[in-house]
Amino acid sequence: MPVGTQGTVKGLTGRDLVEDLRVRILLANTYHLFLRPGHDLVRQMGGLHGFMNWPNAILTDSGGYQVFSLSGLRKITDEGVVFQSHLDGDRHTFTPESTIDVQLALGSDILMVLDECPEYPVSHEVARESMERTVRWARQAFEHYRRRIAESPTRHALFPIVQGSMFPDLRRRCAESLLELNAEGYAIGGLSVGEPRPLSLEMVEASEDILPRDRPRYAMGVGMPAELPEYVARGVDMMDCVLPTRNARNGCLFTSSGRIIIKHARYRDDSRPLDQYCQCYTCGKYSRAYLRHLFLSGEILYAMLATRHNIQRYLDIMREIRQAILSDSYPEYLKTVRSASADAG
Amino acid sequence: MPVGTQGTVKGLTGRDLVEDLRVRILLANTYHLFLRPGHDLVRQMGGLHGFMNWPNAILTDSGGYQVFSLSGLRKITDEGVVFQSHLDGDRHTFTPESTIDVQLALGSDILMVLDECPEYPVSHEVARESMERTVRWARQAFEHYRRRIAESPTRHALFPIVQGSMFPDLRRRCAESLLELNAEGYAIGGLSVGEPRPLSLEMVEASEDILPRDRPRYAMGVGMPAELPEYVARGVDMMDCVLPTRNARNGCLFTSSGRIIIKHARYRDDSRPLDQYCQCYTCGKYSRAYLRHLFLSGEILYAMLATRHNIQRYLDIMREIRQAILSDSYPEYLKTVRSASADAG
Repeated sequence: MPVGTQGTVKGLTGRDLVEDLRVRILLANTYHLFLRPGHDLVRQMGGLHGFMNWPNAILTDSGGYQVFSLSGLRKITDEGVVFQSHLDGDRHTFTPESTIDVQLALGSDILMVLDECPEYPVSHEVARESMERTVRWARQAFEHYRRRIAESPTRHALFPIVQGSMFPDLRRRCAESLLELNAEGYAIGGLSVGEPRPLSLEMVEASEDILPRDRPRYAMGVGMPAELPEYVARGVDMMDCVLPTRNARNGCLFTSSGRIIIKHARYRDDSRPLDQYCQCYTCGKYSRAYLRHLFLSGEILYAMLATRHNIQRYLDIMREIRQAILSDSYPEYLKTVRSASADAG
Repeated sequence: MPVGTQGTVKGLTGRDLVEDLRVRILLANTYHLFLRPGHDLVRQMGGLHGFMNWPNAILTDSGGYQVFSLSGLRKITDEGVVFQSHLDGDRHTFTPESTIDVQLALGSDILMVLDECPEYPVSHEVARESMERTVRWARQAFEHYRRRIAESPTRHALFPIVQGSMFPDLRRRCAESLLELNAEGYAIGGLSVGEPRPLSLEMVEASEDILPRDRPRYAMGVGMPAELPEYVARGVDMMDCVLPTRNARNGCLFTSSGRIIIKHARYRDDSRPLDQYCQCYTCGKYSRAYLRHLFLSGEILYAMLATRHNIQRYLDIMREIRQAILSDSYPEYLKTVRSASADAG
């Protein structure tokens, strides 16, 4: 899922996303939209689908992660979290119930429960307390959600989130506790918080055999191109990440033969497309030399073209993965991408 | 002509310009492209048409105006102008001949002669000397251009530029002197340098009956939407301006019923398009409320959508103008737009 934090995937129009890239779901950040323009305004404008004129699915996070990573002063209690806006310092509160209300106002298709995402590293004791709070909040969120949904003619889904820091036993206990909610899908949170990559994969593995196989599993906030097949190999069905879009803007482009750092002098007079195998608009129309010029000149068009390409690359990887699974050749596929990734260094 | 200073109209792809907006000619700035990425690289990449993948016409200025307005230390002699790059302080020289060579390397379709654009106000004496230098430079440029073009299989055009500051007698003398060049078109420069608007129009009028009626006349660097019909009424066929693109990015949008300053609170929950009569992608898909949100959030998509709309508005005005001329109703058209403009305040 491409990330559309503030109700837009940075640098792309709806047409780019739907017609060119065939994006079927994107993620929007509840924290950002709650602060600006405000969920009530978004609801009034037809929900996020109407406001940003988006015809496909939208998944929203609960806002919890952004409260922990972006806002200033924050205080966690059993009731929820009090925090200061990173925009104007205003004080707000998120509770398990209120974040459901905000996400329903946004008209999200897939909602997330409020969770606590501990920093890395923390002690087992702190991780356990935090995980238990996350489970309690998930129960409250589901209770509130089911009441609200009973009145609603629209179809939504709510996913609880497996936490437990980097402790496999806590991850397993968390997953087991969340099963009782009989959710339509399960998210795995608290990854990519500074831990070494093998540890992230181990944490996904920890709950893999507990989470129901017939429901989507969503690894939140991952990952690099070479990691996507690894997560899928560990039972993950959905991922979101700012990497394709943010790295694009910073000059890092992903291709089928590795990364391109576009500012490098070697691309100065390189008339080839970023990736000769890529079907995106950028690769069909523009050279590395032109993209380098746009990047060095700080041109908006650079961000537009680079983002388009990186999203295409990520979606191509996911299409390859689906194809390999459907043709029953995933182990071979994984072997190939692992050795290609090792070659690329 | 939309302005594509650094080889891109800020915030628009080639597809946006050609397929959506039907732009048939754009302006690129010789000064900027000479400094970065350099005209030799652009030539090597297939000229500006190849480099930016642009299928339609390109007009380039001579770089003179940017030397006067952007660069640091500069020294004008009869030979040309020595100046320092605004990017790195490097010293360069533009001569009437060298700017032709640079523009031919860029593969421009319509080239401009190097001219001197005096600041406003200057004395009659200074304006006269400067104008006479511009005429001498134009002769040298044409001599050099005709030698270079004799070897070239490609078709180009070179326009001389009428100067003379705000003195009608100098404007007339300049235009008369340039006639001997038998150019395929004539530009009128030195406008929009801080003078009151009625004076700009008066300066265009001064040379109107001297410049040949069967050749395009190009008023450089103008103007506001309400001014376009005024310039055309004074015999102008071509204009370029950064206003539609720059103002778009700064939050000022032009509509058929006046300007919209998108940050204003009144647009907070305004679900209407910018302009209900506009056929652009932005007006077809997005509300004022959404555009305001994108603007306040500093989103790239805002610049993309706003630029698209403002360019459409300018081209719509030019289409209206052409239609009014073709249907022999220009005086009535002019009366209508003048009174609408007076109403809009």
